Amino acid sequence: MTFQSPPDTDPDLDAIRQAYGRIAPHLHRTPVLTSAALEALTGATLIFKGENFQKVGAFKARGATNAVLALNDDEAGAGVITHSSGNHAAALAFAARLRGIPAHIIMPSTAPAVKKAAVATYGGLITECEPTLAAREETAARVGAETGATLIHPYDNPAIIAGQATAALELIEDAGPLDLILVPVGGGGLVSGTALAAAGLAPDTRVVACEPANADDARRSFQSGILQPVGAADTIADGLRTQLCERTFRIIRAHVHDIVTVTETEIVRAMRLVWERMKIIIEPSSAVPVAAALNAAVEVAGQRVGIILSGGNVDLGALPF
Amino acid sequence: MTFQSPPDTDPDLDAIRQAYGRIAPHLHRTPVLTSAALEALTGATLIFKGENFQKVGAFKARGATNAVLALNDDEAGAGVITHSSGNHAAALAFAARLRGIPAHIIMPSTAPAVKKAAVATYGGLITECEPTLAAREETAARVGAETGATLIHPYDNPAIIAGQATAALELIEDAGPLDLILVPVGGGGLVSGTALAAAGLAPDTRVVACEPANADDARRSFQSGILQPVGAADTIADGLRTQLCERTFRIIRAHVHDIVTVTETEIVRAMRLVWERMKIIIEPSSAVPVAAALNAAVEVAGQRVGIILSGGNVDLGALPF
Repeated sequence: MTFQSPPDTDPDLDAIRQAYGRIAPHLHRTPVLTSAALEALTGATLIFKGENFQKVGAFKARGATNAVLALNDDEAGAGVITHSSGNHAAALAFAARLRGIPAHIIMPSTAPAVKKAAVATYGGLITECEPTLAAREETAARVGAETGATLIHPYDNPAIIAGQATAALELIEDAGPLDLILVPVGGGGLVSGTALAAAGLAPDTRVVACEPANADDARRSFQSGILQPVGAADTIADGLRTQLCERTFRIIRAHVHDIVTVTETEIVRAMRLVWERMKIIIEPSSAVPVAAALNAAVEVAGQRVGIILSGGNVDLGALPF
Repeated sequence: MTFQSPPDTDPDLDAIRQAYGRIAPHLHRTPVLTSAALEALTGATLIFKGENFQKVGAFKARGATNAVLALNDDEAGAGVITHSSGNHAAALAFAARLRGIPAHIIMPSTAPAVKKAAVATYGGLITECEPTLAAREETAARVGAETGATLIHPYDNPAIIAGQATAALELIEDAGPLDLILVPVGGGGLVSGTALAAAGLAPDTRVVACEPANADDARRSFQSGILQPVGAADTIADGLRTQLCERTFRIIRAHVHDIVTVTETEIVRAMRLVWERMKIIIEPSSAVPVAAALNAAVEVAGQRVGIILSGGNVDLGALPF
């Protein structure tokens, strides 16, 4: 298995624009949406970036496509590999198929059938392993050694971060000046990209990361200045159960203005409200920044606020309402 | 209660364009949407008209707004009245509030709380009655006599039909040439308007009405040439449990090319597929034409097909999956 050697510098606006040029022919420029009902509830002008409408149903298609298309031909030839079981796995399979190369996806044997099906839809080659982090890493190392595939980490990778940054690039271009951007934080790839895009394009726009209180490693790390483990991460927001890495923590400390948390009840209520009033399907992770706006975890009244709705992949057979 | 005297002529393209001019400042020009996943399943180019994103969550806002704004000041002063309990009731309350006049809504005491809440949200004045058609009509007559309000029937009204026609007007303008438009049929207001708009704007475009097999009065009427009662109407598509009136039946016979039916299982499957793949909330009535395209109740492969997604009002606490 070849690990991409991470460059020392984080993606700047040029790198983000290069990523945009690379992925734009293959992905959706997702719509920005408004809601009179949610504006009335918050007193803010809310501009939602609809990444639930992105290919594979989540912003993860941006980073994965940029990372795969940025490989040189030698690297690409042996394929790519990851051991995420969520949206990144489906996104990597999608991106690899675009380039016509294999995507090896290491998934725990306990992963829901719906997640395996999503990867299989895009032609991902699934290797199952025991449901432990050690087994996932060992299996990924073994399959990587056998195939020579390049590991594409879901967020500890500057090409991934540059790709995720393109959502904010589009949002800032389409929404006009924003006082604030609210974005969910899990491993930190999306919020890192968002903060770097805002720093380059709209330095007066504050970026606030929003996190489930039940998986608040980013908030604890941000407050203490020391990278913290996520712990049990018992949250419905399944995309946010991961924890920051050194890279994303460094970018967040440099460019993110605050991190706020919301409860599980607030997440479910916000998700239901968006479904009922905006008539769109968002996944629980997307509801986290909406909940932060609704419960005034962050002050939004009177401001122009961008909210990144990160994805729309939910199991309709297991809804919380 | 004053009944609007129905003119003998059905709305033509001029009347539809007048309706559009009247309502456009107050309503959404809803988006047209596409889905690579649904195109792959059908082999057709599908262009969805997203009336689930319309004000009050359904196309009914169009007809009600046109009917209310078309009243002269004397008529309007005494308010409007209807005894629909579905989307038309909320739409009429919405439209009356726009004009600053009262909307009297007669609802059966058994109507779901969510429907009463929708009407109340827009300031509609609810009068409850026994859950029989006779009680609804008697109560409407009594409240109408007391108030002088104008009855706005949900579909037996040319101003309503002209308003509903504006959805197809926008679809045809935005989608370009279509071989076919699929539209759900209940009382026939939407399909009448759609067929009249197509006849005026795009006479080569066929209009096919889609109906639950369990509430197939329109299909039976169309085939026999004689207006048929709807019967039990045991369908999840609650917006389509009503039956044609002489006016809509006449327009359908003149301008609709075919009526096809789908089963309850097909409706639920199509609804779930749209939620999962398009990430939008549609109500069961909207899934009826989608089901017709998916199960080849009407031949769509190789054609450019417009599908009107009529609304997105569902009770998330009572989903069929």
